[in-house]
Amino acid sequence: MDRGLFITFEGIDGSGKSTQFNLLKEYLEQKGVDYIVVREPGGTTIGEKIREILLNKKNDKMVSRAELLLFEAARAQIVEEKIKPSLEAGTTVLCDRFFDSTIAYQGYARDLGLDRVMDLNMYATDGLEPDVTFLINVTPEEALRRRGVRGEADDRMEALGMGFQAKVANGYHEAAKRYSRIKVIDGHRTPDEIFEDIKSSYEALL
Amino acid sequence: MDRGLFITFEGIDGSGKSTQFNLLKEYLEQKGVDYIVVREPGGTTIGEKIREILLNKKNDKMVSRAELLLFEAARAQIVEEKIKPSLEAGTTVLCDRFFDSTIAYQGYARDLGLDRVMDLNMYATDGLEPDVTFLINVTPEEALRRRGVRGEADDRMEALGMGFQAKVANGYHEAAKRYSRIKVIDGHRTPDEIFEDIKSSYEALL
Repeated sequence: MDRGLFITFEGIDGSGKSTQFNLLKEYLEQKGVDYIVVREPGGTTIGEKIREILLNKKNDKMVSRAELLLFEAARAQIVEEKIKPSLEAGTTVLCDRFFDSTIAYQGYARDLGLDRVMDLNMYATDGLEPDVTFLINVTPEEALRRRGVRGEADDRMEALGMGFQAKVANGYHEAAKRYSRIKVIDGHRTPDEIFEDIKSSYEALL
Repeated sequence: MDRGLFITFEGIDGSGKSTQFNLLKEYLEQKGVDYIVVREPGGTTIGEKIREILLNKKNDKMVSRAELLLFEAARAQIVEEKIKPSLEAGTTVLCDRFFDSTIAYQGYARDLGLDRVMDLNMYATDGLEPDVTFLINVTPEEALRRRGVRGEADDRMEALGMGFQAKVANGYHEAAKRYSRIKVIDGHRTPDEIFEDIKSSYEALL
C-alpha cells in the first residue's frame, strides 16, 4: 500500500487559508480519497488541552520560549498519535497549520531564531516533513481588511496586531525561499481561482 | 544588593526530598532570610495548567517527546516570571525539582538522550543554573517501601513503577558525576541527620 500524502496549509490570519483547506477537503471527498483533517495546535486530547493554554487570552504573561515549546509539544503528540499512523495506513492527511507556522510566528515574528525553531520542529516531528505546503499569500493589509469583517480577534495569537502580522508574512516568505515543498499561492483572487492552483499542484503529486 | 541563591532539591519519589525541602524552608524562615518556594512543573498560572496535563493519569497516550517539551515549557515560564526576577531582587529561591529531574526522568529513564535534554534545559532557562542542588539519595527499594506506606501512586509520573524508578536513580547518579553543583546526600538516615548535611552545605555557600 502506498503511503498517504501529507499536505499542510499556511498563511497569516485572514489569508483565506481555511477556505482553501475546506475546498481541498471537499475535493478529496468527491474523489473518494481516504483522508483525515487535523489542526495545529491540537488534534489530540492532549494537544487540545495545550491549544487551550496557547490561545486563551488570559495567558498574556506567556513568555515566547514557553509558547514555542508548547507548540512543539502539541506537535510531537499529534505526529505520533495521528499523522504518522495515518500516513503509514495510506491515508492522506490535511493539516491546517504545521511547522512552517512556527518558523513564521515564533522564529521570525517572536524573533526566537530560525535555526532553533527548525531544530525543534524536526525534533517534534522526528524528522517528518509535509509532502507539500500551500502558503496562501496575501498582504497584511488585505488580511486585516478581511479579519475586520469577522470582528474582534478570537484568541491570544490573533490579538497581536498588524505589525506582528507583517513580520509573520515576512517569516513565511523566508521559509518559502528555503523549502521547495512550499508552494506560494496568490491569495488576491476569488476562492475558485485560487483553488484551481491548489488542485493542479495536488494532482501533480499523484 | 547581592543576587539571591538558587537552591534545588532532587530525588526519586519516596526519597524524602520533600521533607528536607520543608526543613530548609523552616530554617530560612527562622533565620529571617528573604526567600520564595516554587515547584516544578508548575509555579505559575500557565505552568500549573501544564502540570495538570503532565500529571493527569488519563493522559496515558502522551509520547515522551511531548512530555519533555511540556516540562521545558513550564520551566521557561517559571524561570522568566518568577525565578529570575526573585534572584535579581536578592531573594533566595527554593525549588522542589528542577532540570536535573528532566535529565533523570526524560533523558535517562525515557531514553531521550542527555545531550538533547541538556540543550533543552539550557534553552528553557536561558542559561540559568542552580547554585546548589541537593540530591537525596536512597535505593529504589527503600523509596518503594516508603511510598508503599503512602498508598497508591498519586499521578501519571509516580505510577511508572519500580523499574522506571531504578532508571531514574541511575540518571541522577550520572548527572551528579557531571555537575559539581549537585551534592549527593545519603537519604538512609533520620531526617535530622540528613538535614545537618544540607544545613552545612547551605551555610558554606554564604
